[in-house]
Amino acid sequence: MPFCPLVSYAHWEIVPTRWKDNDVYGHMNNVVHYTFMDTVINNWLIGEGGLDIHEGPTIGLCVESRCAYHASLAFPEKAAVGLRVGHLGRSSVRYEVGIHREDRSELIAEGHFVHVFVDRGTRRPVEPTGRLRESLERLRME
Amino acid sequence: MPFCPLVSYAHWEIVPTRWKDNDVYGHMNNVVHYTFMDTVINNWLIGEGGLDIHEGPTIGLCVESRCAYHASLAFPEKAAVGLRVGHLGRSSVRYEVGIHREDRSELIAEGHFVHVFVDRGTRRPVEPTGRLRESLERLRME
Amino acid sequence: MPFCPLVSYAHWEIVPTRWKDNDVYGHMNNVVHYTFMDTVINNWLIGEGGLDIHEGPTIGLCVESRCAYHASLAFPEKAAVGLRVGHLGRSSVRYEVGIHREDRSELIAEGHFVHVFVDRGTRRPVEPTGRLRESLERLRME
Amino acid sequence: MPFCPLVSYAHWEIVPTRWKDNDVYGHMNNVVHYTFMDTVINNWLIGEGGLDIHEGPTIGLCVESRCAYHASLAFPEKAAVGLRVGHLGRSSVRYEVGIHREDRSELIAEGHFVHVFVDRGTRRPVEPTGRLRESLERLRME
Repeated sequence: MPFCPLVSYAHWEIVPTRWKDNDVYGHMNNVVHYTFMDTVINNWLIGEGGLDIHEGPTIGLCVESRCAYHASLAFPEKAAVGLRVGHLGRSSVRYEVGIHREDRSELIAEGHFVHVFVDRGTRRPVEPTGRLRESLERLRME
Repeated sequence: MPFCPLVSYAHWEIVPTRWKDNDVYGHMNNVVHYTFMDTVINNWLIGEGGLDIHEGPTIGLCVESRCAYHASLAFPEKAAVGLRVGHLGRSSVRYEVGIHREDRSELIAEGHFVHVFVDRGTRRPVEPTGRLRESLERLRME
Repeated sequence: MPFCPLVSYAHWEIVPTRWKDNDVYGHMNNVVHYTFMDTVINNWLIGEGGLDIHEGPTIGLCVESRCAYHASLAFPEKAAVGLRVGHLGRSSVRYEVGIHREDRSELIAEGHFVHVFVDRGTRRPVEPTGRLRESLERLRME
Repeated sequence: MPFCPLVSYAHWEIVPTRWKDNDVYGHMNNVVHYTFMDTVINNWLIGEGGLDIHEGPTIGLCVESRCAYHASLAFPEKAAVGLRVGHLGRSSVRYEVGIHREDRSELIAEGHFVHVFVDRGTRRPVEPTGRLRESLERLRME
């Protein structure tokens, strides 16, 4: 079972599971891991980067995501989700996410998620600037 | 806007929202409130009542639910969810749930949720006993 | 087990279940029934009433919903969902929904769902008019 | 915009969207595409392969999934989802999925999804046999 030590991620968030996350096989359905990614990433962008999801001119659209599943998590457990930026381009950013058991003793799943920042109206790529870009740079690791 | 003071519920849990909880109108979709009920109730039954959702002989099935919506909540906000038991019968229990803004300054929605406890195999009603019943009695308020 | 004959609803839609609709107990989670209501109602409003969920000046907000569960449905089954209007006020409408097995041989759940129509910007109640009101009137039954 | 002609997939299923699939940005949230994969794959395994998700000795667990997003889909649109098997190993299978606009005029997203078949109890890999394997072989394309 692979293990990702604390140092591997720039930001951590505890995400509780919900009753409905468990599927017929008694564990968190594979789709829910992507909800965790979406949630942790947008929480960061809103809180640290000043992203205004309702009115702001720039929004992030997902153009690719992937997840590899190593172990099971199940409601009512909580996840410790680690987040870092693997690549920051002009208008796109690749986040890397590690979903761990709450005490970080085990890696449940690893994934990545690519945002392209676009103009809300035209949906054409734009370059994130100012506080938003700074928040992304703070998620990079050497 | 109605307001439910702290004393109104026997148990409180903070439930974070997720990105996907918001719908096209920019706020938490009306369906998600029921997920909050399901989650807080089962968290209590598992943690306090010893309910074993995977193997236990007794399970709780929802036979009725209702919610009245008074205000909006939106990701990335968190909810403070209050839980109490309004009626405890032989094999059924009626939970009352209040979903509030995290600081409890405003009631977002009020609902109820009725569980009938049944045998996992036959799905016939059974009486919850022991630790499970005690956990339900602790949620009753005068 | 109650039974609602075909004549009881003004409109019918077949709604397929999804893998993730089933929960740990092997049947469709109680929350999903509300997703069916939301979907069938908005499908009608968009298709028949000309509701523009992205840009239109009037939107429908849910202020109350309720569901009573009589039997189980499970993925990969499909539901036959019946829809009618029980009460049509100046700015609000109460829909009544019956979720049946696909062949309508059994009523799975019955619920209602109340929309208040509001101005998208101010969120103040407005009166639905024209094609939108006509589409609601066509859902009324004597 | 890439385009996948009809011949590219061994099986097609129409999957309707739901109100709640749309997120704040007015289109189907990136997570929902994985629900479509899960649903179409399991529909096939149950209907064609005889998979018994409730009691059968063999179940399929997702060990990897990925999706690339090319265009937007939004409720109330329906998707035409194409399914084929890209690789069939001893105990694992890699499905390839193409999510298209209902008339197949445009490819919305492409993904893959890897199942490992395991024993329901021990969760150790097992080889799918008989009708289940035959159903997988019928999804292979030259």
